[in-house]
Amino acid sequence: MLGACLDNVRERKPLIHNITNYVTINDCANIILACGGSPIMADDLNEVNEITTICNGLNINIGTLNERTIESMILAGKQANALGHPVIFDPVGVGASLFRTQTARQLMKEIHFAVIRGNISEIKTLAMGTNSTRGVDADVIDQITVENFADVISFARNFSKKMQAVIAITGAIDIVTNEKQTYVIRNGVPMMSEITGSGCMLTAMTAAYIAANQEEILKSVVASICAMGYCGERAYEKVVAHDGGNASFRNFLIDEVYKLDGQKLEVGAKYEIYQ
Amino acid sequence: MLGACLDNVRERKPLIHNITNYVTINDCANIILACGGSPIMADDLNEVNEITTICNGLNINIGTLNERTIESMILAGKQANALGHPVIFDPVGVGASLFRTQTARQLMKEIHFAVIRGNISEIKTLAMGTNSTRGVDADVIDQITVENFADVISFARNFSKKMQAVIAITGAIDIVTNEKQTYVIRNGVPMMSEITGSGCMLTAMTAAYIAANQEEILKSVVASICAMGYCGERAYEKVVAHDGGNASFRNFLIDEVYKLDGQKLEVGAKYEIYQ
Amino acid sequence: MLGACLDNVRERKPLIHNITNYVTINDCANIILACGGSPIMADDLNEVNEITTICNGLNINIGTLNERTIESMILAGKQANALGHPVIFDPVGVGASLFRTQTARQLMKEIHFAVIRGNISEIKTLAMGTNSTRGVDADVIDQITVENFADVISFARNFSKKMQAVIAITGAIDIVTNEKQTYVIRNGVPMMSEITGSGCMLTAMTAAYIAANQEEILKSVVASICAMGYCGERAYEKVVAHDGGNASFRNFLIDEVYKLDGQKLEVGAKYEIYQ
Repeated sequence: MLGACLDNVRERKPLIHNITNYVTINDCANIILACGGSPIMADDLNEVNEITTICNGLNINIGTLNERTIESMILAGKQANALGHPVIFDPVGVGASLFRTQTARQLMKEIHFAVIRGNISEIKTLAMGTNSTRGVDADVIDQITVENFADVISFARNFSKKMQAVIAITGAIDIVTNEKQTYVIRNGVPMMSEITGSGCMLTAMTAAYIAANQEEILKSVVASICAMGYCGERAYEKVVAHDGGNASFRNFLIDEVYKLDGQKLEVGAKYEIYQ
Repeated sequence: MLGACLDNVRERKPLIHNITNYVTINDCANIILACGGSPIMADDLNEVNEITTICNGLNINIGTLNERTIESMILAGKQANALGHPVIFDPVGVGASLFRTQTARQLMKEIHFAVIRGNISEIKTLAMGTNSTRGVDADVIDQITVENFADVISFARNFSKKMQAVIAITGAIDIVTNEKQTYVIRNGVPMMSEITGSGCMLTAMTAAYIAANQEEILKSVVASICAMGYCGERAYEKVVAHDGGNASFRNFLIDEVYKLDGQKLEVGAKYEIYQ
Repeated sequence: MLGACLDNVRERKPLIHNITNYVTINDCANIILACGGSPIMADDLNEVNEITTICNGLNINIGTLNERTIESMILAGKQANALGHPVIFDPVGVGASLFRTQTARQLMKEIHFAVIRGNISEIKTLAMGTNSTRGVDADVIDQITVENFADVISFARNFSKKMQAVIAITGAIDIVTNEKQTYVIRNGVPMMSEITGSGCMLTAMTAAYIAANQEEILKSVVASICAMGYCGERAYEKVVAHDGGNASFRNFLIDEVYKLDGQKLEVGAKYEIYQ
């Protein structure tokens, strides 16, 4: 089932419009290419409407938010909504500043997101308006544990219902939910948090998955997250074999995404449906 | 003959001023270093005049065009023209938005470009004003075939004459022409289109080649394109040997450019003069 | 002694606020992660005050200076000063334009830098106001030689005294000094100048070192520079073994930083105290 989502990306080659941060923009472009999509990066107010129109999906990431691009995000988001293109939101570092928090709220008010993906601190900030984020990483006090697991899922479902969006909370364990169904994903390795951009890349890749699988948004998000985690596992094995570090890990990760196909994804995906 | 062009880059170490997009800017800097040049990236209106003055060539790329940098491009371009520094233009994604198309036209009006390099869709848009580009990749309907080959060359020559610039149309087969002579290049591998920035890197590297070979602009463009394609072939072999993907390909490509010398280029270049 | 500085970075995981250029921003983020820190890149005036407040140190780099970010640099710098967070300055390409030179002077006037790191041409420009820089690389006429060595050190000490900052002049040989003590470092390989960003990465990593070792600024700068040079040596060996080029070198360099620990650094560091 998940394999078909990837096969569709490779077959349909969705064109993805990205308004994203300039820290990881190159990695985001390369991972979209690696999974079979085609990326366009464009953030000027003079062209985002046209660019998003020729694309199949839109990825909005506030990693290096600046005033110039907020209006571009809103304009592109509204146009993508009008055309029925799925839009994904990555609220990088929301909670680290009032500017990010307010901008995220504004974006959520003006744009309908098909998917919102963040770490637990970011999603909590979006849902509850608290400013607890420690920079761009999840806060320890927000950590998902055996004790609070059911609560986190219930929280995610409620937020999904409110936003009418698939909510993806990623970390050591990933939770993907709409208001009816919830998936728990156990792929991935800790080294993914030792490179910059693993979250941004995941969101960018997920944009390609959902644009190629518009009838199956929830499943394609699950497929994308399993794919990234599984490729992380394989990349980690290569890093160990090559006595590498985080720079090699980044390259191997993108390489593995490039080489992945639907069949391998079916075998490698570790997920369960939460009852 | 082509080998000497590369040798000149390594000997003269041209300083290249780049006003370019922030997706592939790091790759562009590294490939200029790899071929023997020295890159400076600067796009603020307050300094581009001085920066271009201390350089030997200028590379203008509209990949992430924004209003702030258009004026910088024009100012730098005019100064480079006044000083007799060769200027190269990479009209990334022209045709994808009116903003890019109009800006490209304005740049071509205000600046004399020694070289314009793009894919067939981009060059057609520049020449004919049609908006047919599918994002940043060449459109299928524009593809160069056996049937339209002579027409494409004739079109390129006419555009070269009009612009008084060497025109380089790159793709599976590359065409480089001024109004008198035309080269057809058959180096390269399809994987070059599966990384972001292969076009941007080619243009940036070509800026170094033309700045170090100002008396031989046409030949040095041919040399640069052969070098990139040949290095792509060698990088592809390494990717296969290492079971890699597109991230490894990017690294191997720059590595091969770094290791290339004039003698190897002479052996590896696959080109013919079109009669 | 130097090993403890690195161990502190890994243990304390300092959060580093970077206002830096977009050429090497990804490499800077990855090398901060590689050495054990945590990077945040944020340059909008609306949020730099809050971002720097939650961080432990601030890195200011003028590599792609533009008007929008100067005010952000000053605001963040003042806030970091007020909170007692160490601030490091990388005056990339100062002297290449009046805009950079004037901005650097303004930053030095408004912000107290704990450390200023540059090549000899950049530091001379800062100290003496001459515009001798050839782009972003050190000028040949500024080169440190056996003959002028004592003079350069005396110059650096005076500038350190004037700025009340540790001055780090990096190149084939590195000089690190405050007004009382001077270290001379002999780690490193020439290939470090054949990638973009080796200087930027060094400054970013040093920000993490000083933030984790605030009681030992001078020594932690020495530790960071020895670490980078030693990792460069190890990366170079890997490049040779793998028949690589500058792209591989960049990756291996970050990998080696990732794998370095205090004990290895103690063994690999080549420095002496200048009498």
